[in-house]
Amino acid sequence: MRTTEMLGTHPGETTADAALLARAIDALAACAQACTACADACLAEDMVAELRRCIRTDLDCADICATTLRVLTRQTAAEAAVVRAQLQACVVACRTCGDECESHAEMHDHCRVCAEACRECEEACTQLLATLA
Amino acid sequence: MRTTEMLGTHPGETTADAALLARAIDALAACAQACTACADACLAEDMVAELRRCIRTDLDCADICATTLRVLTRQTAAEAAVVRAQLQACVVACRTCGDECESHAEMHDHCRVCAEACRECEEACTQLLATLA
Amino acid sequence: MRTTEMLGTHPGETTADAALLARAIDALAACAQACTACADACLAEDMVAELRRCIRTDLDCADICATTLRVLTRQTAAEAAVVRAQLQACVVACRTCGDECESHAEMHDHCRVCAEACRECEEACTQLLATLA
Amino acid sequence: MRTTEMLGTHPGETTADAALLARAIDALAACAQACTACADACLAEDMVAELRRCIRTDLDCADICATTLRVLTRQTAAEAAVVRAQLQACVVACRTCGDECESHAEMHDHCRVCAEACRECEEACTQLLATLA
Repeated sequence: MRTTEMLGTHPGETTADAALLARAIDALAACAQACTACADACLAEDMVAELRRCIRTDLDCADICATTLRVLTRQTAAEAAVVRAQLQACVVACRTCGDECESHAEMHDHCRVCAEACRECEEACTQLLATLA
Repeated sequence: MRTTEMLGTHPGETTADAALLARAIDALAACAQACTACADACLAEDMVAELRRCIRTDLDCADICATTLRVLTRQTAAEAAVVRAQLQACVVACRTCGDECESHAEMHDHCRVCAEACRECEEACTQLLATLA
Repeated sequence: MRTTEMLGTHPGETTADAALLARAIDALAACAQACTACADACLAEDMVAELRRCIRTDLDCADICATTLRVLTRQTAAEAAVVRAQLQACVVACRTCGDECESHAEMHDHCRVCAEACRECEEACTQLLATLA
Repeated sequence: MRTTEMLGTHPGETTADAALLARAIDALAACAQACTACADACLAEDMVAELRRCIRTDLDCADICATTLRVLTRQTAAEAAVVRAQLQACVVACRTCGDECESHAEMHDHCRVCAEACRECEEACTQLLATLA
């Protein structure tokens, strides 16, 4: 990821603290990838029928993180209300998916790693949100 | 769109009123397409420099509608808190983009049509949200 | 969908026959939605373990259709090589997913409807591709 | 990104060399982010009217990379023809966007950094494709 470098090249001012923004964007990319991989790994498990809720929360979290990543990346003519509402949805999605993955982290390594990615992303988005309030 | 037909084939119960769900999903698809087209048409205008804010809100609204469409489409193991938070973000994005497009609807037909798509989508999502509260 | 209306508002010329373009864009939106819904319905089936390949092809087809829809929607400064390559990938994805869904269309209605959406999308993209060669 | 770690947790075999896969996935995430940021930075430039083609190729490349990332991330029941066709489209998109950004890399730092991300992604996808032929 060239996130910090790209943020530094924008001709205008950044919409938030650049370090917090870059951290959130990187955490969103990692979480979206981990959730896509976790849904796919759950699908391959023998006990896939018991992992339905995990697959569903993974798919939602991956989509929501990917969109939030784009909204945060854009610095031109940002609308604070949109950025905040999308960040709030992302915090809820990461918390839900992190809780679900954590609940079978001992049985499945993909859920353990994915839960870590969700936690890190939830925290980075929450911290960024606090500065935008 | 085969939205209603697809909703009817799910082996479980739908997470909300099927007619309201289908209407929201179709409005989200139309809004995402209109916003992508409007951003692209704004980019081709001679006065593109005055349409920066419109392009930005179009891009955000397209991404947010596309993600909300997927979250609403999924009926298995839905988490109400995630669905609600993403719908709320979508309502804010549609309202912001609809206001922006409407402000130059008289000058640009793509903004006029896009504003209509945003209004319809905002209303469909707001109505669906009311039944999920 | 306001696809035809939006295409007509672009300040420049369209990159292909407007009727074929609009038909492809609408078929892509319908196919992306049907594939997302079919993956989700498969996940809810008792025999989910036998539907792994269907879920996988659905998820790929939904992502590929959503991206192809955006590439086709944009009319400004189009690069024919990119449009063609993405359309070709989409035709392969729709054919693969259509074949897979068709193979258990008699058992699952969501696969039957989804196969129809894939066929229609494959055909619309193939026809559009033929005019771009 | 936890790409390598996530690939290692999949219950089945990986569809390609794990190191090449992880490198491609990481390059796709970096390229998608850089292209989204470059389109946004171009939009904020005084000379936005001369950057229309750059914004267009950035938007296409971001969408195509994001989808290719997901297709590569999934390891369950992969269909080689779909993976290859999407990778080929991605190579074309990255080459087109890399060429365009490079052509004004001396004037805009965001284009310079974005061109680097496109080149790295094109190369990683080309190398992976060679092993899938």
